[in-house]
Amino acid sequence: MQVKVLGSAAGGGFPQWNCACPNCRNFRAGTFAGTARTQAQLAWNAAPGEWTLLNASPDLRVQIDTTPELWPTGNNGPRDSPIRDLILTGAEVDQSLGLLLLREFHRFRVHATPSVRKILTEDNSIFGVLARFAGQVEWHDLPLDRPFTAGGAKLEVVLPPNTGFPGFVSAQRAKELNPAEAAIGLLISPESSKSTLAFLSGCGSISDALLERLRTCDVLLFDGTFWSDAEPSRIPGITRTARQMGHLPISGAGGSLDRFSTLAHPRKIFIHINNTNPILDDTSPERRTASDAGWEVAWDGMEITL
Amino acid sequence: MQVKVLGSAAGGGFPQWNCACPNCRNFRAGTFAGTARTQAQLAWNAAPGEWTLLNASPDLRVQIDTTPELWPTGNNGPRDSPIRDLILTGAEVDQSLGLLLLREFHRFRVHATPSVRKILTEDNSIFGVLARFAGQVEWHDLPLDRPFTAGGAKLEVVLPPNTGFPGFVSAQRAKELNPAEAAIGLLISPESSKSTLAFLSGCGSISDALLERLRTCDVLLFDGTFWSDAEPSRIPGITRTARQMGHLPISGAGGSLDRFSTLAHPRKIFIHINNTNPILDDTSPERRTASDAGWEVAWDGMEITL
Repeated sequence: MQVKVLGSAAGGGFPQWNCACPNCRNFRAGTFAGTARTQAQLAWNAAPGEWTLLNASPDLRVQIDTTPELWPTGNNGPRDSPIRDLILTGAEVDQSLGLLLLREFHRFRVHATPSVRKILTEDNSIFGVLARFAGQVEWHDLPLDRPFTAGGAKLEVVLPPNTGFPGFVSAQRAKELNPAEAAIGLLISPESSKSTLAFLSGCGSISDALLERLRTCDVLLFDGTFWSDAEPSRIPGITRTARQMGHLPISGAGGSLDRFSTLAHPRKIFIHINNTNPILDDTSPERRTASDAGWEVAWDGMEITL
Repeated sequence: MQVKVLGSAAGGGFPQWNCACPNCRNFRAGTFAGTARTQAQLAWNAAPGEWTLLNASPDLRVQIDTTPELWPTGNNGPRDSPIRDLILTGAEVDQSLGLLLLREFHRFRVHATPSVRKILTEDNSIFGVLARFAGQVEWHDLPLDRPFTAGGAKLEVVLPPNTGFPGFVSAQRAKELNPAEAAIGLLISPESSKSTLAFLSGCGSISDALLERLRTCDVLLFDGTFWSDAEPSRIPGITRTARQMGHLPISGAGGSLDRFSTLAHPRKIFIHINNTNPILDDTSPERRTASDAGWEVAWDGMEITL
């Protein structure tokens, strides 16, 4: 199974349109030692000529444009796409908005928890563009409590702690939903092998049980949003720490470098990198620290074979 | 006043992700005599260092990325943008989705009809990302019946006939709204001069009164979605003609070339070009016909001085 990282940044991407942090400023000035990154998005080949998307980033149009494997072949009439399935791990804008970019009369399946489906389709009339004809988008409920098969892969939900519904979901609405369904991590294996990729792009802490669960996976794509716990609180408008936002920082006691230091088997890759994170700079001491600890930093176009 | 065309294509852009029409196929093969186009988006400089967006296309992130005038200067702290105002002409996905890309704690004003505001903010919880703090986005009602000032320009609404609410608005909801507020055209003038740009990106027919209204404008940006009335009905999933979709075709009796043939004064430019439209090909006979009739075809990056 070929997994492609179509986007590797956190919400807003890198550079971010209204950000003048040193990373974004230097990038625009042409003096930054690192690449631009679109918002986190994965895809894998489910079968020859069939692809599954993991989440639906707001940058999906340009991500498809730059990925020939996702283009229509032209062999199936004037409208076609190899995209058959899409799996949502949450209802945040940077996970779900791209669904609305797939509105052009294409049939596909969306796999999501019932709560995520309800937030999008019951509370947002605009998602009606995916129901212009019967059978346009088929919604399938993801089970939390057992392995399942979807999009040409064996999947199993892992629940990161300290997640919550997106901020735009009212407290009253949240009470009608199942908090365990707000955001999920996934273990992803090809149907034909036991190789496992763990995807946890938003994870505020790592329990001992979760750590044990991840010990045997082959590839770990983990929340690399912030370098330090205080990093987001330096952004105007944000008063919370990284942990309070549901993102375990990379550095510091109990951070991901620390917590995963005994994880010897998996290939470890940070994804969902915020524009303020110093690891975006290939020459920064922070990037060197992460590399020395055995971590890679995902980039747009990265390929992983499972 | 400097007006920039940030995007010139219809919904879906060009090439369109799931389209294998001759235009899209040839573009991907590298054999197309024309440029890629993002979804229709205008911006104008309201004052030195202050910009106004006309609509909010789904491609707004990349459109800002490629337009240095819209970058933060870095002189106003770590988060900033020269974007102060945004004017919506409708609530279609390709007109409004980009609002959600401006969610990163930036204050700005949105000018829209009450019906468009209600569709977006009352019927779609996800637009709550623009109300994360008091005063984040200020909504201002556009008056239909008199000139007004917004975003550094003098504005006046012109109502194209045959418009309607987006397909995702239920018939029941539409009854509670004012049909005249569904979609508007605009006459746009700098505050300091009488030069006028008319913007009508969706217009199903041209009344004699509308024709007279446009006779004295200096620049006309008009609906160039489809070349022929039958063009959309050849797209799988679409059964309506161009006119039935609210887009006057360019060619044929009563088409825009025909109806505007007596309009001598304005500079005439097609915008909102669908990926299937042969005028995207710089070498096509249809493009030649449009050129010979005095029409230009908008392109991403085009600048217009008023």
